[in-house]
Amino acid sequence: MASPAVDYARQNQQRFLSELKALLRIPSVSTLEEHKSDVQKAADFVASELRRVGMQHVEVIPTRGHPLVYADWLNASGKPTALCYAHYDVQPPDPLDEWVTPPFEPTERNNNIYARGAVDDKGQLWMEIKAIEALMRGHAGKLPINVKFIIEGEEEVGGESIADYVRKENQKLKADFALVCDTELFAPDLPTLCVGLRGLVYTEIEAQGPKTDLHSGMYGGAAPNPLFALIEIISKLKDEKGRILIPGFYKNVQAPTQDELRAWKKLPFSEEKYRKTEVGSKQLTGEAGYTVLYRTWARPTLEVHGMPGGFTAPGAKTVIPARASAKVSMRLVPNQDPGDILKRYTAFVKKLTPKGIETKIKVWSKGPACVVGTDNQYVRAATQAMHDVFKKDTVFIRSGGSIPIVTDFQDVLRIPSVMMGFGLPDDNLHAPNEKFHIPNFYRGIESICLFFEKLGGKNRPE
Amino acid sequence: MASPAVDYARQNQQRFLSELKALLRIPSVSTLEEHKSDVQKAADFVASELRRVGMQHVEVIPTRGHPLVYADWLNASGKPTALCYAHYDVQPPDPLDEWVTPPFEPTERNNNIYARGAVDDKGQLWMEIKAIEALMRGHAGKLPINVKFIIEGEEEVGGESIADYVRKENQKLKADFALVCDTELFAPDLPTLCVGLRGLVYTEIEAQGPKTDLHSGMYGGAAPNPLFALIEIISKLKDEKGRILIPGFYKNVQAPTQDELRAWKKLPFSEEKYRKTEVGSKQLTGEAGYTVLYRTWARPTLEVHGMPGGFTAPGAKTVIPARASAKVSMRLVPNQDPGDILKRYTAFVKKLTPKGIETKIKVWSKGPACVVGTDNQYVRAATQAMHDVFKKDTVFIRSGGSIPIVTDFQDVLRIPSVMMGFGLPDDNLHAPNEKFHIPNFYRGIESICLFFEKLGGKNRPE
Repeated sequence: MASPAVDYARQNQQRFLSELKALLRIPSVSTLEEHKSDVQKAADFVASELRRVGMQHVEVIPTRGHPLVYADWLNASGKPTALCYAHYDVQPPDPLDEWVTPPFEPTERNNNIYARGAVDDKGQLWMEIKAIEALMRGHAGKLPINVKFIIEGEEEVGGESIADYVRKENQKLKADFALVCDTELFAPDLPTLCVGLRGLVYTEIEAQGPKTDLHSGMYGGAAPNPLFALIEIISKLKDEKGRILIPGFYKNVQAPTQDELRAWKKLPFSEEKYRKTEVGSKQLTGEAGYTVLYRTWARPTLEVHGMPGGFTAPGAKTVIPARASAKVSMRLVPNQDPGDILKRYTAFVKKLTPKGIETKIKVWSKGPACVVGTDNQYVRAATQAMHDVFKKDTVFIRSGGSIPIVTDFQDVLRIPSVMMGFGLPDDNLHAPNEKFHIPNFYRGIESICLFFEKLGGKNRPE
Repeated sequence: MASPAVDYARQNQQRFLSELKALLRIPSVSTLEEHKSDVQKAADFVASELRRVGMQHVEVIPTRGHPLVYADWLNASGKPTALCYAHYDVQPPDPLDEWVTPPFEPTERNNNIYARGAVDDKGQLWMEIKAIEALMRGHAGKLPINVKFIIEGEEEVGGESIADYVRKENQKLKADFALVCDTELFAPDLPTLCVGLRGLVYTEIEAQGPKTDLHSGMYGGAAPNPLFALIEIISKLKDEKGRILIPGFYKNVQAPTQDELRAWKKLPFSEEKYRKTEVGSKQLTGEAGYTVLYRTWARPTLEVHGMPGGFTAPGAKTVIPARASAKVSMRLVPNQDPGDILKRYTAFVKKLTPKGIETKIKVWSKGPACVVGTDNQYVRAATQAMHDVFKKDTVFIRSGGSIPIVTDFQDVLRIPSVMMGFGLPDDNLHAPNEKFHIPNFYRGIESICLFFEKLGGKNRPE
């Protein structure tokens, strides 16, 4: 195939990368109040670039949380309309001392770019914008299809702003499909489309015992300890085999089809290599009788992420804390309703709460799982575009993560999402030394160029 | 009785209190590295005051941790020798936002002085020094008995420096009895001597799972979570009835005598009032079949004080942490050997460690329980001195806390400790709004004056 957009993209790779670095330098950590102005700065940076590459009606939209960025270009009469999604916010960088180079000083090593947000999701957001630039320049200032952008700054914090906006502005956001660039390749050099995501219910159990912190010598044996209570409660939420014990939790779980399971078995995947190179633990855990891919893509889980409270600095303090809490999340699979699960979970936690302790549950976020059909022209064109760039057949996978917006696009806008992601399994997202493999950044730009050219009739399958 | 020392003390109460405030302003938090120089400052402050009141051979002794302060006055030929103990270090003040007035700005309210360390133990340390000043001034520059001081700055951190020093300098520290001012009155206005302490083993279980922090969406269901592993382990260390499940844990537990139990039953104590006013929880916890006093004074316990690791800031981060730890302590009762308990605990934790997780146990401190006989002239004189000040019979109690040095005095120096403390049960030690009731500060000074006068034959029982 010949693509003037791809040609342009290849000639401008170095500049695209150095622009991305400027975005990565902005510490837009959405979960930390002290970074609020950085999050705003990142939104402005993205909006200004959308304007520069030729998008129209660019808006930075204030919300109760962090701003959304909207843009469109709707002059391809009679052609389909894409709704491009990505997020410009990032996870907190801690633990800082495990970063080889600082999280907000993007650094190239071994053909990777290291920075918080490199792959999740600023690098992939930048792919979308740079593909638009390449398409504009390659096609005399016109795009082959109509394009809208809706970009958020609350993905890592489970914010509701984009969902509210999608519901409120469903006419404005109307499109034929969404392009979501926030996933990964199944393996290096293997073109991959993600067609399923797990849902998420993220909670914090807040436990109160004594009215004030007490000395464990004076009061140990009589005063209820909220930290120990949380341990008692959480230990009864999941057994040592990984099975969640909340009554009715598995009732509506929908298993993958036999076809899908057979396709997963053909994927290049070694559980032993995964254990060694990605996880790095002595053994893997999880439910017996399920493969790792099944467990992480299509089985629900329950995890604890942190337990604030008591004394956590180095050293010894003999305190029975007045209050403690536990951040507990559940990943959901298709057909599990987050509201129903939350109700069952809340009731079970109450039931397990030991005497002398009061518990309250705070919900940080909730969204259902999502499975996208593969039988539509958008997924087909994306499949072909990635094949053309990688020169290999595109595989369909799921992801264990959650992109709640994909469900909103499906339920509110009634459009399928093409989840075309270019991360790698070892990119350390949400962890120290997050990276993006630089060739994948470029292949991402080219894949989007070809994808949109194909949909616009500008680039026929070979 | 007539006591020129008590007369002097009464005339100088205001000054004594304002000097104490100066000591309370020094944030000598021994567990926090950033306060190291403050701890040194507090040691120097104490040494300088010991010199000023007339003690001799005053030394600030450097250690591998925080300094010791030694002083003596040995000119009372033929009279007994006291070894006065207290500590000048304090607990961390967090959570800061629960203090009504800042922890290191001593403030008077309702006849109390509020500050971190007010009662534990700077206020009681100051009682000892001010009693010496009063005795010197009241007896023409002479003390009625010989006096040595050994004051430490690592009590709150379980440091070994004083124990090492006691072993190494047992000749220098030779005395007939120790005076330890670090305990409390059983009730307001009730003269009390503490004759038993629980021991303590304070550990941190460090758990390692994945080699790096992982995304709980991508890896949840396959990667072992060290925080969840700690929850599983700790939930199996103690049952919901408060019984510790470590095999052999209770084997050597020595129960109090029937006489002691009968005396405890006569103490003015309401479990309901204790629950409401001191603990403030909906119910109390602990082993069935034991009273609160029995549970907190003479039954071993196991508590969790904090669980560092993962994401603990406000908000949601979907992380499976590489590492997490739990601060777990056990209070021991007479005849339980800390080394034996630690061995059993370590073996059990290893056995409970789930697959995929590695655990290591760090020991922050360990010391046995201690019971002091009441049948000696020192305890008798102290009993009488407190009676004279309070005009009530002195009661014998135990404390659930630990003062490891009392065991060292007993085992190494072969001397009994007179634990004469003037705190109150609601003084919030180790908690926000720690206080010392100001009349008890003065009564403490007077009690020590009379106690030493009696031993020196200067003040006969009425």
